[in-house]
Amino acid sequence: MLTTKNIIQKLINKKISISVAESCTGGLISHSITKLSGASNIFKSGIVCYSNDSKIKYLSVSKSILKKHGAVSSKVAEEMINGLFKKERTEICVSTTGIAGPNGGSKNKPVGLIFIGIKFKKNKLIFKKFFTGTRFEIQKKTNEFIFKKLNELI
Amino acid sequence: MLTTKNIIQKLINKKISISVAESCTGGLISHSITKLSGASNIFKSGIVCYSNDSKIKYLSVSKSILKKHGAVSSKVAEEMINGLFKKERTEICVSTTGIAGPNGGSKNKPVGLIFIGIKFKKNKLIFKKFFTGTRFEIQKKTNEFIFKKLNELI
Repeated sequence: MLTTKNIIQKLINKKISISVAESCTGGLISHSITKLSGASNIFKSGIVCYSNDSKIKYLSVSKSILKKHGAVSSKVAEEMINGLFKKERTEICVSTTGIAGPNGGSKNKPVGLIFIGIKFKKNKLIFKKFFTGTRFEIQKKTNEFIFKKLNELI
Repeated sequence: MLTTKNIIQKLINKKISISVAESCTGGLISHSITKLSGASNIFKSGIVCYSNDSKIKYLSVSKSILKKHGAVSSKVAEEMINGLFKKERTEICVSTTGIAGPNGGSKNKPVGLIFIGIKFKKNKLIFKKFFTGTRFEIQKKTNEFIFKKLNELI
């Protein structure tokens, strides 16, 4: 069983380029990659787009989709990887948007609800997940899930 | 003596808006902020601009300055906070660019050389620092230095 660190090392060894657009993970994915030596050979950009405004500004997420579906939605996760891919053209593009808590949850969108977008070459996948735990645990579980999925794809 | 976490909590309590442009810290500053509950009230965006291309694209750092001074320079740290402020208009803007190692160092720009830009209201400060340790330790020392400085300013 490979750890997140092992999988990132595998991406570095295989020279697979990656960029990320992070809302709820807030920089954790970017830093998981950049804390390893050699990251600069594969990691292009990380956009930590915490506000709706930054999702629009840096990733061209449409205002009407944000309004209709809300920032925490599969549609926005998809728009985030689409916008990121247009800017970065990396082999892998990843997006996260969700409610890490402990506040901000609602009946329809509870704490722990996370949408994840992964684009690898011609594959585009959107996941809807529920993670439990503290804010940091939810961020970490999202990060681990992403690299486990990437390991299956590469 | 306040910890980095305490200082970020202070920013949240005082409702002081912040955005960051990270090269060598690679998302660590963004995630130090976003792992705390309430971060979304003050944190707007984090741009992890690992490539020259992303410094140009997202922060409008000029190509000629990158060419003349190199990405690891006080001039680029300054251009990064200028570009970030134009996009975000947050009370605090922070930038980092440096060589976290273990590779990539040279005689003139050794591993551990970090330039840090901090803009708080009308104050704009650029620091040139040398930190020792592993890649992760250098990133962590940069992060700690920034919040210690911010604590003096706010």
